[in-house]
Amino acid sequence: MPATDGQPIEGHISIGAYFLARMSQLGIKQIYGVPGDYNLGFLDLVEDHPDLAWVGCCNELNASYAADGYARVSQAGIGCLVTTFGVGELSALNGIAGAHSERVPVVHLVGVPSTSLQAHHAVLHHTLGDGQFDAFTKISGHVTCAQAFLTSSENATDEIDRILKAALTHARPVYLTLPTDLVYAKISRSPLEICLRSQVSKDLENQLDRKVAEQVVDQIGDLFAKSERPIVILDACCNRFKVQSETMNLIEAIQIPVYTTPMGKAIVSESHPLFGGLYIGDITMPGVKEQVENADLIICIGTIMSDFNTGSFSYHLDSSTRIELHSTETIVKHAHYASIGFRQLLPLLTQKLASLGKKVTNQKLNPRFLKTSTKQDQKNGLVTQDEFWPLWADFFENNDVILGETGTSSFGLLDVKFPDGAMFLSQVLWGSIGWTTGACLGAAQAAAEQGKRTILFIGDGSIQLTVQEISTMIRVGVKPIIVVLNNEGYSIERFIHGMSRKYNDIQPWNWTGILDLFNPEKSATTASYLARTHDELIELLKLPELRRTDRIQLVEVKLGKNDAPRALKMQAELTSKGNKY
Amino acid sequence: MPATDGQPIEGHISIGAYFLARMSQLGIKQIYGVPGDYNLGFLDLVEDHPDLAWVGCCNELNASYAADGYARVSQAGIGCLVTTFGVGELSALNGIAGAHSERVPVVHLVGVPSTSLQAHHAVLHHTLGDGQFDAFTKISGHVTCAQAFLTSSENATDEIDRILKAALTHARPVYLTLPTDLVYAKISRSPLEICLRSQVSKDLENQLDRKVAEQVVDQIGDLFAKSERPIVILDACCNRFKVQSETMNLIEAIQIPVYTTPMGKAIVSESHPLFGGLYIGDITMPGVKEQVENADLIICIGTIMSDFNTGSFSYHLDSSTRIELHSTETIVKHAHYASIGFRQLLPLLTQKLASLGKKVTNQKLNPRFLKTSTKQDQKNGLVTQDEFWPLWADFFENNDVILGETGTSSFGLLDVKFPDGAMFLSQVLWGSIGWTTGACLGAAQAAAEQGKRTILFIGDGSIQLTVQEISTMIRVGVKPIIVVLNNEGYSIERFIHGMSRKYNDIQPWNWTGILDLFNPEKSATTASYLARTHDELIELLKLPELRRTDRIQLVEVKLGKNDAPRALKMQAELTSKGNKY
Repeated sequence: MPATDGQPIEGHISIGAYFLARMSQLGIKQIYGVPGDYNLGFLDLVEDHPDLAWVGCCNELNASYAADGYARVSQAGIGCLVTTFGVGELSALNGIAGAHSERVPVVHLVGVPSTSLQAHHAVLHHTLGDGQFDAFTKISGHVTCAQAFLTSSENATDEIDRILKAALTHARPVYLTLPTDLVYAKISRSPLEICLRSQVSKDLENQLDRKVAEQVVDQIGDLFAKSERPIVILDACCNRFKVQSETMNLIEAIQIPVYTTPMGKAIVSESHPLFGGLYIGDITMPGVKEQVENADLIICIGTIMSDFNTGSFSYHLDSSTRIELHSTETIVKHAHYASIGFRQLLPLLTQKLASLGKKVTNQKLNPRFLKTSTKQDQKNGLVTQDEFWPLWADFFENNDVILGETGTSSFGLLDVKFPDGAMFLSQVLWGSIGWTTGACLGAAQAAAEQGKRTILFIGDGSIQLTVQEISTMIRVGVKPIIVVLNNEGYSIERFIHGMSRKYNDIQPWNWTGILDLFNPEKSATTASYLARTHDELIELLKLPELRRTDRIQLVEVKLGKNDAPRALKMQAELTSKGNKY
Repeated sequence: MPATDGQPIEGHISIGAYFLARMSQLGIKQIYGVPGDYNLGFLDLVEDHPDLAWVGCCNELNASYAADGYARVSQAGIGCLVTTFGVGELSALNGIAGAHSERVPVVHLVGVPSTSLQAHHAVLHHTLGDGQFDAFTKISGHVTCAQAFLTSSENATDEIDRILKAALTHARPVYLTLPTDLVYAKISRSPLEICLRSQVSKDLENQLDRKVAEQVVDQIGDLFAKSERPIVILDACCNRFKVQSETMNLIEAIQIPVYTTPMGKAIVSESHPLFGGLYIGDITMPGVKEQVENADLIICIGTIMSDFNTGSFSYHLDSSTRIELHSTETIVKHAHYASIGFRQLLPLLTQKLASLGKKVTNQKLNPRFLKTSTKQDQKNGLVTQDEFWPLWADFFENNDVILGETGTSSFGLLDVKFPDGAMFLSQVLWGSIGWTTGACLGAAQAAAEQGKRTILFIGDGSIQLTVQEISTMIRVGVKPIIVVLNNEGYSIERFIHGMSRKYNDIQPWNWTGILDLFNPEKSATTASYLARTHDELIELLKLPELRRTDRIQLVEVKLGKNDAPRALKMQAELTSKGNKY
């Protein structure tokens, strides 16, 4: 594979340019971050690169969220973040930890002081004042799956390639420090001939013990042959490791009913004839719950068994009926196979199960979502949460990228039917409020690369954390539809604890003034709307221009202070019990 | 000392209430943070406390900055931050690291999952999904001086008191995890009888080796007796460890000239007859530099020798003429005395030097600041940086709290003469841009407790990182004067590298619309001003209402894109050399 900068593979290249050639080979087009004096020389290379764009964000946390959102939506499937030593990288840490937790590969490059200043233990700005330079790399070691600290040009290509392969292998963030004096140090271009993705695939193939894999496949085949009511549950890692098409091959080959989880929502089309609904333990819609829990064989693909993904662990599934296909292991009932990952196993398993000639006799599937109800009585004509969410089902279009902020939005969207090809972005496991505003920047850029719309749902409490990144959306020219739920504070917290406590209140803002604040020179076309009542929202959703993507739009919707979606109320009650105050 | 909640010392108290009683005893009145489900039960106690106020911030980084700003200005001299497990604490990490680096005691309490959920390794939201609960505490261990992880009520008081004493002893942040199920666990109140501050003083006294201290004092006395041109240089730790009055006793007893550093600016009144000016190595104003470098004995008190505090280590001071008094050690020429700290030494030294009967023969001191110059020619009548800064000298009033954001503002303010009692807040060592907006919230609350004004200078690039905390200023009713320097981007970066690079540009905002966005219900009285030219700024500064503190005010000043203060230009050149691109 040629380097994408138009230069021949032979000869030399700077370390900075080598790194960027790798980013470009991986399909990355946008690099997120904030300039700082230890990364400025490197940013020259980014700014001058023909195929990469620098997206300077308002702050580093937002930039890390943006890189995460970009990785989730882009065809590259990986994101890149650049910060400066100490101050910048630590500000981004929560975002990197979230990517680690939720299995999103983000490459975090940190510009650090020159090797000579480090060797002299200089008390530089952005240090802890103790002449040490390793505290921050140790910190990042807890929330990344591989780290490299470049100290010379000797092993730079090996080190860069090692961590990038780790990111692709584990779908987790990696960390790289690049000292200022090494940015332009010359190294050989020749390693660029090796495609890292192919290398990772080959490595995984080589590591597979075929005998064990055959045994696993046979064992699952036997269980499947005997089962009467088998189902599949798709979860987050199916998407994170990009095995959706292999998974759909399996499902369609044997015509097995398929369910999803909150983190797996919309991995399979919610209109697919084999789709049975969302399973969330005790929070599952009636009807769907019984079907899942009556299954006698459950193949879980890419499962993450976290509290908010399982209705606080209220899965009523016997482990003796369960098969779990993970990225690096397979569990068949009680047997663990440590090195059998689904990237290798799925094609073998599809072949095996298809060869049995058995198609699952369908039970009648009835995936349930909230239906538009008749208008409910509410003080001042406010739209209720039960009315609000179903209204959006008709607004969504095929292939929309839909972000649901942790809390009201993420739980509310679970009960809305998504159209074909739509994508759901939410931090169900990590749950850092404010994440979606930053993630929306990256997601919208990746969506634009593919001609898709982006729609963000976020509450008034959450948007206060990261609001300034809307300014960057305007700057780079993406045009998401931003729906701000104005319900006067942190609703998810209220339902967990402190319903009438002041600490769950927030300062009200002039929400429909946000786009104007960030757009004084009218460089972008914008539109802001306010729906104060149920009727105003209905009228608003009829506007054809609201569906357009030629301008950035913000919709403020007033909602009741003590109202919440069905699933959130149930989850909050379960969570509250666990806290044991 | 009685607990301040009106309850008797005898009997029992919950762990949460014990912690708050300690905060109140230390003089803290405001607690900063963001609610999250693992800290909500604890926040009930804060909200109900008669002497403590909960200041809910827009995000955790800003809250950590606010706690830092509060600690620097309040008479308590210590701040308190409350976040939630994982997402919240990591977002605040940069702020805590800054407090660690700059020697500011901040108590960081993190609400964490219940002990039983931790013991079961539950895959909870806000975890890394691996059932482990110690990654974040390990991370915080790198940027705090003491940590406690409460796991039972057994040793809760010991653990809380241990870390609080560490914060007071070392002037650094400390970290405490409080599981949800322990917030209301009962413990004995009786340890509250012991005053932690007195205990720390006693401990330090007890640890002092009096014989060594006498030897040190005698040695310094001999050097002082022989010196002809002795001086004192005051730096950050003099303020951080609250030894200003002990220091001034020494200076006045022997009538010795005193200089300050950027981090030490205004620790001694800049109108004091013994004040000689700011010493910043090669960046020092001419005249002042020669006086310092001609001294034959230099007593440095509380010195932090960081790059931006020393003109990139361009101190031309022979270590054979130097005495350094630190918080936990003393260095006399080349001799290090490890356990002799200035809190014990200063009174002994003052006594000794005073007893010699020698008053320093004053050289004529001439502390230099930038003078208001005649209007310079500038395109479109823009005010130049050389004109801009001196104009503020007349605007400042005694006891003002003045914040200078890292970059144009911090370097510009160095050359402005401050009035008596004025305080300078800046992150000279840690240098995290955006810090002052968050810090201004805490500083303004602490200043208001003492009837002082607060004035913030911040550039347009920096304010984008943390702008939403102005909303909290409006919410809690503080009334700082916020001066936004609109020069179209990151000037400090431009002068270090990439003067015409796009990555140093930012999205323009409608700066004078910020206060309105955060104040839709007009709960606060606000005023915003724009000075587009030198002449408009002159007129603006004449307005009597601009000096008032009965409303929050924002002043936007347009400045040249490629202009910078004298000291910043010099520092940027030195820093750029060190990067060795």
